[in-house]
Amino acid sequence: MGSSGAVPAYGRFPSAQLIEIQNKHFLVDCGEGTQMQLMQYDCPIHRINHIFISHLHGDHYLGLMGLLFTLHLNHRVNDLHLYSHHGLDEIIIAQLKYSNSALRFKLIFHMLNPGVHEILYEDNQLTVEGIPLRHKLDCTGFLFREKQKPRRIDKDRLPQDLTLQQIAALKTGADVEDESGKIRYKNTDLTLSPRKSRSYAYCSDTAFDENLVNIIQHIDVLYHEATFMEREKDKAVETLHSTAAEAATIAKHANVGKLLLGHFSARYKELEPLLDEARVVFSNCYLACEGNTFTIDE
Amino acid sequence: MGSSGAVPAYGRFPSAQLIEIQNKHFLVDCGEGTQMQLMQYDCPIHRINHIFISHLHGDHYLGLMGLLFTLHLNHRVNDLHLYSHHGLDEIIIAQLKYSNSALRFKLIFHMLNPGVHEILYEDNQLTVEGIPLRHKLDCTGFLFREKQKPRRIDKDRLPQDLTLQQIAALKTGADVEDESGKIRYKNTDLTLSPRKSRSYAYCSDTAFDENLVNIIQHIDVLYHEATFMEREKDKAVETLHSTAAEAATIAKHANVGKLLLGHFSARYKELEPLLDEARVVFSNCYLACEGNTFTIDE
Repeated sequence: MGSSGAVPAYGRFPSAQLIEIQNKHFLVDCGEGTQMQLMQYDCPIHRINHIFISHLHGDHYLGLMGLLFTLHLNHRVNDLHLYSHHGLDEIIIAQLKYSNSALRFKLIFHMLNPGVHEILYEDNQLTVEGIPLRHKLDCTGFLFREKQKPRRIDKDRLPQDLTLQQIAALKTGADVEDESGKIRYKNTDLTLSPRKSRSYAYCSDTAFDENLVNIIQHIDVLYHEATFMEREKDKAVETLHSTAAEAATIAKHANVGKLLLGHFSARYKELEPLLDEARVVFSNCYLACEGNTFTIDE
Repeated sequence: MGSSGAVPAYGRFPSAQLIEIQNKHFLVDCGEGTQMQLMQYDCPIHRINHIFISHLHGDHYLGLMGLLFTLHLNHRVNDLHLYSHHGLDEIIIAQLKYSNSALRFKLIFHMLNPGVHEILYEDNQLTVEGIPLRHKLDCTGFLFREKQKPRRIDKDRLPQDLTLQQIAALKTGADVEDESGKIRYKNTDLTLSPRKSRSYAYCSDTAFDENLVNIIQHIDVLYHEATFMEREKDKAVETLHSTAAEAATIAKHANVGKLLLGHFSARYKELEPLLDEARVVFSNCYLACEGNTFTIDE
């Protein structure tokens, strides 16, 4: 929804991404204007049940209150889970108080633990891990991992006489046995290997930090902030941000499949030069700009 | 900057207007995305020294924090005056606290008095009055009035031998006298009448309220919210908003020069029908949409 750093510029909006996994929708960061961007790109805002806020710099959360009010006015009733560092609850509650509003739905706050790599969310299909990032405020990245998926039934070879229970067991990897416990069909004769379990990490904002490398090793897609070009490296060091080449270095060392860049400084009108610097280090690299969708094949 | 009601829709942004008077810039309301809109329309954001927030519903102030951070990051040092009902200071201070930010410039809070018609701002060229509006929260409209302007020197008839002091006196309406106190030149022989003192009122959000009429009598331009059409009048009554025809009725009874409509409900994709309903009552009426500029001639 937004590729901009702290100051929006050239039509770029501050940080926000919508992650869709197995028909579940997660919002990661929610900079100013996120609700308008979600509408512009026809995203199903009412299907978002979990919002992860990396840190409390304004460009990462100032769109949240407007989104909450809009969900309220659109008669949302389902619980909404918010994951954030300390303070977001106070900020939201003060704004509800002075607008004399009681939301129609329940907000459930989950506090992030600074500096801790841990599972924040888990269901039967995926986990979301919090990743410690190195920034001026407590800051957490988010790693989405699909769990091992079921084996796929090979419909062409499936006998007609199996029960639903036996088919379910096949998906878990079990063989089909007869009443005496003897194998009637071997699992691998009737099933195909599971679809790939995909993974995606969102890392913004952060200084160059090799500690990330182990955590995100071999993931499919890494989003890593790239606020600056190499010639502004001193600014990156000073503000605890990264250059595009540093983002690429992390991607390379972690052997990720693809790298997406974002959080671009307002000083850059054109972004291709940032991409060029990153691609020298890691070629499978793209700009994550407003309205772009990246699909990870299963 | 924004013509939308509480829920942004169809590319419409929430409320905000930039008022320029005698090269001074005032921001009135500051809904989410206002800073991006100000940038898009090349407005000089660093020249805004006074921001008036009508009330603390999110669609009227949620863009303020982002604007403050951007001014800070752009190295603003001049004081910034904020006029608001009780609570905005707490909301801002909490957000500064959790972002660990100290603004480079001073914020000066001015508390609005609910239900009181009073002068909020005054300099040698204009006043800004607070106008009580009738809404679910304490809500104040803003009436900008230029003061009486100096008489204009008629350069074609100005004698060569006058001092700067005598010319300054002519502008105030005085005659030019000789040393004995006898009139040497009558003021009206050397000056033209002053340029017109212009006036503009911003009235959002409000139920239909005839009490407004006296306060805004004969002003040049009235902006009045027009959230609904007549067929949703029951919604207008319930939510303490106005219909377009009600806005026009106020304009007509107050004998204003021109009426601007805004704060349109997300239910309306097309806005011409609202304008049509208003024009039946008051013909000199326009939609105040994103990017529109309205100039009042002197």
